[in-house]
Amino acid sequence: MRLGLDIGGTKTDAVVLDPDGAVLKRLRLPTGFGPEAVVASAVTAIENIADASGIDFESIGIGIPGMIDEGTGIVRHAVNLGFESLDLGAALAERLGVRVKVENDVKSAAVGAYHLLELQHPMAYLNLGTGLAAGIVINGALWRGARGTAGEIGHIPIDPAGALCPCGQRGCLETVASGSGITRQWPSDAEYPALELFEAATAGDERATAVVDALTRGVASAVRTLILTADVETVVIGGGLSHLGEPLFAGVRRVLQDWARYSPFLASLSLPTRVCVLPDGMPAAAVGAALIGVDHSEVSLNGRSGYRRLADRGRRDRRRQDSGARGGAP
Amino acid sequence: MRLGLDIGGTKTDAVVLDPDGAVLKRLRLPTGFGPEAVVASAVTAIENIADASGIDFESIGIGIPGMIDEGTGIVRHAVNLGFESLDLGAALAERLGVRVKVENDVKSAAVGAYHLLELQHPMAYLNLGTGLAAGIVINGALWRGARGTAGEIGHIPIDPAGALCPCGQRGCLETVASGSGITRQWPSDAEYPALELFEAATAGDERATAVVDALTRGVASAVRTLILTADVETVVIGGGLSHLGEPLFAGVRRVLQDWARYSPFLASLSLPTRVCVLPDGMPAAAVGAALIGVDHSEVSLNGRSGYRRLADRGRRDRRRQDSGARGGAP
Repeated sequence: MRLGLDIGGTKTDAVVLDPDGAVLKRLRLPTGFGPEAVVASAVTAIENIADASGIDFESIGIGIPGMIDEGTGIVRHAVNLGFESLDLGAALAERLGVRVKVENDVKSAAVGAYHLLELQHPMAYLNLGTGLAAGIVINGALWRGARGTAGEIGHIPIDPAGALCPCGQRGCLETVASGSGITRQWPSDAEYPALELFEAATAGDERATAVVDALTRGVASAVRTLILTADVETVVIGGGLSHLGEPLFAGVRRVLQDWARYSPFLASLSLPTRVCVLPDGMPAAAVGAALIGVDHSEVSLNGRSGYRRLADRGRRDRRRQDSGARGGAP
Repeated sequence: MRLGLDIGGTKTDAVVLDPDGAVLKRLRLPTGFGPEAVVASAVTAIENIADASGIDFESIGIGIPGMIDEGTGIVRHAVNLGFESLDLGAALAERLGVRVKVENDVKSAAVGAYHLLELQHPMAYLNLGTGLAAGIVINGALWRGARGTAGEIGHIPIDPAGALCPCGQRGCLETVASGSGITRQWPSDAEYPALELFEAATAGDERATAVVDALTRGVASAVRTLILTADVETVVIGGGLSHLGEPLFAGVRRVLQDWARYSPFLASLSLPTRVCVLPDGMPAAAVGAALIGVDHSEVSLNGRSGYRRLADRGRRDRRRQDSGARGGAP
């Protein structure tokens, strides 16, 4: 059994995967704020789901926002969780007595989405959260890149006359196609400012319409960049903004269709058919974290990743048990 | 021995590689115009270099501009060579009596540059020719992507107010950072318009300076897109415009250094140190074509590509011969 945790800004999502990679159990708890509280809520989530499952785990993987040092499990710049640097790998290993694997939450979600959607081809998971970033899966394995920044497309500028980005550049994708981009352009006290924005646009508010247009064009631009650079077959869109659902995706598809009308080159790439949405409530990051927790899950093996082999092993084991139960022999 | 051909708009470049992947022979001939003439000049180049080498070849690989159908060796949209579609693989196999492998010239050059520069990490080869495109090498092997368009970054727009691109979009990288981009902005009858442009900019011509600034910013943007999306360790710049040499690269480095000054995020990526130039006269596309001609060269094997194994085999073979010559036995 594999355990995976997705430590988000408000909730920690825990799952248990069976040897086939299917979700056996799921549990959600509030995430604490600050380094000690984050570690404590992670330990509580792990202990609670372990108690509920009544089993031991072969591996534990953690998805968490921030820059992750792949070798050590140190997490940096996790501003929403209230710390600048935390050796989460060491802290959890000490508290739990087992080794854990720590990975960035968007990269974890890419692996989880690839698995849960049963994709076979290169894919990218495009996360529209407070920021904008992608995780890329190539040959069935997470592609971290040379320095772990593969998929950091939120800071690719698309307009030299665009807004100043906190990163210091101007007109980054993230300034229009993210939660922070919406907040900047549409300040609001509503519980869900993005929802309010879309309702205002639907009601004909011109300023809201401009913000929504910039958002859908930005998401479409992110899709185009991922496909023209890495040539993934599919871009799966997830993250907080993806809860906007059809109004957002209809807009993105409309932009991609418009582009295909005036660019035969873009038309030849069939972009509108290569975008899909992570179904609401799918625990992609927690499942991906559980799969990444398997040491060999990151190694590409002729297009079959470690967790596929894990699933195969589960099936083989069950077949063996079945034939044993029937008293069969080769 | 492996034979590689780089069929360019004006010249066909042929090389012979020894089992270590070293260039044994090189030969250049004019390329014919139109489908029959292109095939004829390729056959002449192959026959001449074979005669000069006096050996048979295990494999022949061809690099050529255009969209390549990987399965068949059909070349499409090779406008500079005077045809819309040509089954080059079949035509050469028929004329030569051996199977050949056909690949896009930029993708071939990426593999050749990776080999000739003895790189070990993920890399991209950024070709500044009539157009702008890149080839990406990941895990020691060419990354073609899901549909063979990986690295087609020339048609990523960077400015919604930019010039109309022949692809139908506006402000594509190619409209500023390519030979055709220069021709559009700096019409000239000079033999080398790009050289004239740089001389005019150096002499203080304001229009020339603006075109050069757009070019260097465009190249720097291409580097940023490749590193933020695919996170290659190194971007190697080549192609016709790279003959401009230091004035071009000093400009690109200056832009990357400027960006690092106002963006701590970009500074953390050390972009200026991750760009280098393909040395003048290095036959990257022909060498890459020869290496791709090896059937297993495109398969990633734990970070060692087929041609590395080929080189290893060469070394093993020689050791065996050496020990044989010394009468040694295991």
